[in-house]
Amino acid sequence: MDAGGTSTRAVLATAQGECIGYGLGGPGNPTSAGPERAAEGVLTAVARALALADAGLSDVTVIIAAMAGQRAGSDAGDWLLRRLEAEGFAGELAFESDLLAIYFSGSAEDRGYAVVAGTGACAVRVRGGRVEATGDGLGWLLGDRGGGFWIGHRVARAALRDLDGAGPSTTLTAAVLDHVGIATDAARGSGRRRDVERLIEALYAVRPVELSRLAPLAFAADDPVAAGILRRAGEHLARTLAGVLDGPGPLVVGGSVLFRAGPVREAFVDHLGGAADGLELRPVVDGAIGAGQLALRAAGVSVTAPVLERLHDSLSRFR
Amino acid sequence: MDAGGTSTRAVLATAQGECIGYGLGGPGNPTSAGPERAAEGVLTAVARALALADAGLSDVTVIIAAMAGQRAGSDAGDWLLRRLEAEGFAGELAFESDLLAIYFSGSAEDRGYAVVAGTGACAVRVRGGRVEATGDGLGWLLGDRGGGFWIGHRVARAALRDLDGAGPSTTLTAAVLDHVGIATDAARGSGRRRDVERLIEALYAVRPVELSRLAPLAFAADDPVAAGILRRAGEHLARTLAGVLDGPGPLVVGGSVLFRAGPVREAFVDHLGGAADGLELRPVVDGAIGAGQLALRAAGVSVTAPVLERLHDSLSRFR
Repeated sequence: MDAGGTSTRAVLATAQGECIGYGLGGPGNPTSAGPERAAEGVLTAVARALALADAGLSDVTVIIAAMAGQRAGSDAGDWLLRRLEAEGFAGELAFESDLLAIYFSGSAEDRGYAVVAGTGACAVRVRGGRVEATGDGLGWLLGDRGGGFWIGHRVARAALRDLDGAGPSTTLTAAVLDHVGIATDAARGSGRRRDVERLIEALYAVRPVELSRLAPLAFAADDPVAAGILRRAGEHLARTLAGVLDGPGPLVVGGSVLFRAGPVREAFVDHLGGAADGLELRPVVDGAIGAGQLALRAAGVSVTAPVLERLHDSLSRFR
Repeated sequence: MDAGGTSTRAVLATAQGECIGYGLGGPGNPTSAGPERAAEGVLTAVARALALADAGLSDVTVIIAAMAGQRAGSDAGDWLLRRLEAEGFAGELAFESDLLAIYFSGSAEDRGYAVVAGTGACAVRVRGGRVEATGDGLGWLLGDRGGGFWIGHRVARAALRDLDGAGPSTTLTAAVLDHVGIATDAARGSGRRRDVERLIEALYAVRPVELSRLAPLAFAADDPVAAGILRRAGEHLARTLAGVLDGPGPLVVGGSVLFRAGPVREAFVDHLGGAADGLELRPVVDGAIGAGQLALRAAGVSVTAPVLERLHDSLSRFR
């Protein structure tokens, strides 16, 4: 399973790499959702995947839970293992990095790279099937440059600078005011436009990371300021990858910002320049297939490119 | 009084601009400290100032409370007025902008500019004795470029980039690790150095704005990375001022980042370039004298440069 902060995906596969079940659940990360709610999200996804195959947890030999912040081999998995065992599971449960799952969604090779840009942004170098080096992924306050928060933060700043007369005019301004439900109001109180005061209040009233919700406004805008933000996002992601690059290999790209072809991915590839030689770009939507591959590997299956392709093709029937 | 988030300064002056009392108290801003604690901070400062002059609140005709976020003329002052009246005050209480108090600490003129860089960063244009335009001051998340948080944030990022091998080596790294009490540890877990993991945890464990505590490390370092951060801080502050500049006038600079001569102020003046012509730089330590001047003005006193100088000289006996 690929368990994230908003949803969990469970993939049920045979040792031959045939996906025979797939299920969605709620948030599955105990750090953000709490262990109770995370266990619910995971068990819901698992139950749905099993139901499609008329199977039960007692039929499952290995479960890989790919999620951020869970150390492999730690006791921290008790919150989940006890719940699974109560439902008949008698196999092996292991935790893996969500970034490694993204990587193995697009590659069956033991060595390569992944760049993931969702709300956050991170690059990893994979060697011997493990994460050998990590670039950025420092979170919204300290890094994650080029990710969804970074883009949304720049969108908010561009709107404020436009309203303040400190930056260029941009269609992002109207989009941001509309998004937070504030009407244009150029009247001034204490030396500042009223709409600016209200916008500042609105942006500080939510958790900082929620600024990532403004990122889609940059993708939707047809505007040079928005285009500049997206181009710089792609450049940052290229620099983050460059920090862990060491020779050729598959390059898996995922997360909402990089998965779709578009201005960020174009700028990312452009900025890589010659460093992109020998890298084979493979966009993936999430870590579901990679979690499946990690489970096969944990069960002793030698996963080759045809096996990965079978996982892909057979899963596509379910979603 | 000049009431801030960490302390409150009360200046007791005669209508001739003679400072006859001065007192310090705890936090005086109800937004950050809560009304109860803020009232305590203010009343303590006031009582200490009055005690030095053997006076009581019944002798006071006008009180100006300069603080961030209190609208002039709003009812929000009840938290303070009732407490003052209970101690015998029968005069007039009015709230003013803390930025205007900083300005009037360095100028007796109705028109000019102030740039304040403490934890935050802001520039104001003063016309007719009121704030006519405000630049930046958008808070740590959205702006305050060149202020203490901005500098501390860059210090943290420089240390992380150094440890990650993504940026230049800098003496800030050892200073930051020492500041948060983490030993150097180059061993790697999940593709990242252990000390980097611990530093990230430590920096996210406190409120984001606390990153401003790392700003002094940049001033203390003899290092090109630190010098670059301070130079860019000064350039940002110059750009913020440029956004509200409209003709010559006194330029009052204050706040811990700009008050002292040093690299930030040098870069600030350098970056202003020709725009600095006609601006007379006046560093001030805080808004205490300005609050006093605002009280004299509210009492109908015409404050001239000699009166301001008298306030300065007579206050200097007390601190």
